[in-house]
Amino acid sequence: MKEELLKVLLDGKNEEINEIIEDVHPADILDIIHENENEIYNILNRLPDWMIAHIIEEEDDEEKYEILKVFSENKQRKIIEEMSSDELTDLVGTLDEEESMHIFEKMNAEDRKDVSKLLTYEKDTAGGIMATEFISIRENKTVKDTLKYLQKVAPEAESAYYLYVTDKNEILKGVLSLRDLVSSDFETKISDITNTNVISVKYDIDQEEVANKFEKYGFLTMPVIDEKNKLLGIVTADDIIEIIKEESTEDIHRLGGVDREEKIDGSLKNSINSRLPWLFVNLLTAILAAAVVGMFEGTISQVVTLATFMPIVTGMGGNAGTQSLTIVVRGIALGELTGENAKRIFIKELFVGIFTGIALGAVIALLGYFWERNVVFGIVIGIAMILNMAFATMSGFLIPVILKKLKIDPALASAIFVTTVTDVLGFFFFLGLATIFIQYLI
Amino acid sequence: MKEELLKVLLDGKNEEINEIIEDVHPADILDIIHENENEIYNILNRLPDWMIAHIIEEEDDEEKYEILKVFSENKQRKIIEEMSSDELTDLVGTLDEEESMHIFEKMNAEDRKDVSKLLTYEKDTAGGIMATEFISIRENKTVKDTLKYLQKVAPEAESAYYLYVTDKNEILKGVLSLRDLVSSDFETKISDITNTNVISVKYDIDQEEVANKFEKYGFLTMPVIDEKNKLLGIVTADDIIEIIKEESTEDIHRLGGVDREEKIDGSLKNSINSRLPWLFVNLLTAILAAAVVGMFEGTISQVVTLATFMPIVTGMGGNAGTQSLTIVVRGIALGELTGENAKRIFIKELFVGIFTGIALGAVIALLGYFWERNVVFGIVIGIAMILNMAFATMSGFLIPVILKKLKIDPALASAIFVTTVTDVLGFFFFLGLATIFIQYLI
Repeated sequence: MKEELLKVLLDGKNEEINEIIEDVHPADILDIIHENENEIYNILNRLPDWMIAHIIEEEDDEEKYEILKVFSENKQRKIIEEMSSDELTDLVGTLDEEESMHIFEKMNAEDRKDVSKLLTYEKDTAGGIMATEFISIRENKTVKDTLKYLQKVAPEAESAYYLYVTDKNEILKGVLSLRDLVSSDFETKISDITNTNVISVKYDIDQEEVANKFEKYGFLTMPVIDEKNKLLGIVTADDIIEIIKEESTEDIHRLGGVDREEKIDGSLKNSINSRLPWLFVNLLTAILAAAVVGMFEGTISQVVTLATFMPIVTGMGGNAGTQSLTIVVRGIALGELTGENAKRIFIKELFVGIFTGIALGAVIALLGYFWERNVVFGIVIGIAMILNMAFATMSGFLIPVILKKLKIDPALASAIFVTTVTDVLGFFFFLGLATIFIQYLI
Repeated sequence: MKEELLKVLLDGKNEEINEIIEDVHPADILDIIHENENEIYNILNRLPDWMIAHIIEEEDDEEKYEILKVFSENKQRKIIEEMSSDELTDLVGTLDEEESMHIFEKMNAEDRKDVSKLLTYEKDTAGGIMATEFISIRENKTVKDTLKYLQKVAPEAESAYYLYVTDKNEILKGVLSLRDLVSSDFETKISDITNTNVISVKYDIDQEEVANKFEKYGFLTMPVIDEKNKLLGIVTADDIIEIIKEESTEDIHRLGGVDREEKIDGSLKNSINSRLPWLFVNLLTAILAAAVVGMFEGTISQVVTLATFMPIVTGMGGNAGTQSLTIVVRGIALGELTGENAKRIFIKELFVGIFTGIALGAVIALLGYFWERNVVFGIVIGIAMILNMAFATMSGFLIPVILKKLKIDPALASAIFVTTVTDVLGFFFFLGLATIFIQYLI
């Protein structure tokens, strides 16, 4: 299938190409380009401008310009003419000043105005992800009038699945699903089938919150408005799917200590650049924890088994802290941790730490007792474990919450702080207690 | 807003209720129920059956029956009548045999047939998430005929945004967007505007793969077919948004070592049940790693500084392994790790381990040298670090890949295996090398 398509695109007659592209999805042609990067120009050159525009729209933002710039200035202008304003904005957003000037010169006046306006919105907000090609209709028309109007304007619109009803100043008055439109008699008045309780988002809302609203209400599109309720654009569910995937990947990467944009099939250099800074920061905190151990070398030289058991205390603290952190970071991302339930959840986390600490501490205390044949050794490691687990779950809650308050992504830095706390405190509790009770241990 | 709505639902006149529900979204009433659980019956009782059905559809699957069962048998029957087949299937799927029999008895014959059929599909596949209320149209009709047909059937359909064109045996022939339909002249033949290259999924495809297709093509709905290309149902983008969020949460939870379904505002008991098993497994592996240290107590007692430095070697290995693991697990989930690029990525991961190992090993070797004023000590820890980092990134790649082959979720168990490898090997390399070169260390 792919080879066939490639062959037609490269060597087919013009009629063959025209026939095939009627039915092919631009995302599939994009796949072919990725596998044959040297042939981009030859593959795309004979396609119609609108198809090239769609293919560019399917590409990742950073790579869009790589495709566009293989064409002549004149052809670029025609392709740009076919692109939607939000995709043009994404394209321009990745370019330096000189390159974006080149793109702006090739836009028509309307696109230039739309894109300039869109560029003023923050990238990760409702305004930054919306499209301005929407259809607004007036409430005093009939179903038949509106269907006829749609026959004229729909092919240009980003989405014609929901129709937004506005007054003459573009103030949002209500919403009408295309489904309600087509299932109504031709003579019905639009105002009779308009839902006036339209759910919209303001342009400066974070995209993650927009995604949460889509999920809650099960919408396929949502209107974006300004302070005065003026309709600015729409967000569609397919954009939201992409955003949710990206945001999840970012969170997973950051929790795992890699750059949010590292690609699994990227280069060795990219992977090293993505990971080395994080490893160096971790090295510093590991040295800090080691310094705590260093303070107690005298104690360890008297009871070497302390060295055998100490990684258990810190390791289990690290695991417990990571568990709390995971639940809290994900809860923040999903909007499930609120001002109202925060205190209750903090107390729950503390008790999770205490109870799991008691369970694991009992096991390890017994093991320590049998290993060293010394009751005090068992008690020391058991108590150190309980203390460290309690501090682990507390910091697993507090650190992401504090980072969030400081407007730092909690997924980014929480893990390193939590494991630093559990390492430093784990060594300190265990070796400190051992030092206090050293006379019973030797 | 919420208080007002609650007040009307509880104490308003019937006309007030009827007026308000025209415009209110069922998800908002569901919110009100959650905040007033004792009043469920009083809040819902006077609402029309279709609205109650929608509210139940918005609720999490496990909680749907809790709402339904507050009503009389007769009322339940009417509500069930209004629910779509896929939602009824989700409801029945959470119930025990006796309860599901109660539900089945209340369905009409058609729903009973549809739901029985839907229950045969695996929960997490295309068949398990599709709805059977779709609209199929015939290619020999005109736009006007089709619009009139839609006016009759659309209100019942799950989604009327895409229309699937079939022959008389329900074999899928093509797709037509409602947008193309309404933007065509009334007299146009359906066959002239049908896209015959329709992208569909087979009923047994995993839901994560379905989600990846939605993202790639930017669809709002996708048809589900059987082996013979017969149209079975459709999946909609809003279901996909929910699935992607759930799958991401599951992966994040599992990577963090908590149960995939733990809720941040769940009970203390649930949290402990979710975390304790994982902590116990970790305790066993921590004891295994400690046993390795125990083998070398003789060496440590001669050079106590080994105890100070050993957590650095294992900790950095753990971090490097977690990084590789994160990239690989996410790559598997997104379908970006394939048979073709696996070998190249494995080699890249190995080199990431070696190069970052050299960078960090050099730093720690210098630190070790200055701390102990001993060149061999620096060399020993430097080499141990490089070896452990290389094995860390290799196991970060291999372990999830092997788990995937064994059909175990790589997110579930990878972390524990990787840190076991890095702990055991880290202690072994560092303390083993120290034992070999002990005469130069004291």
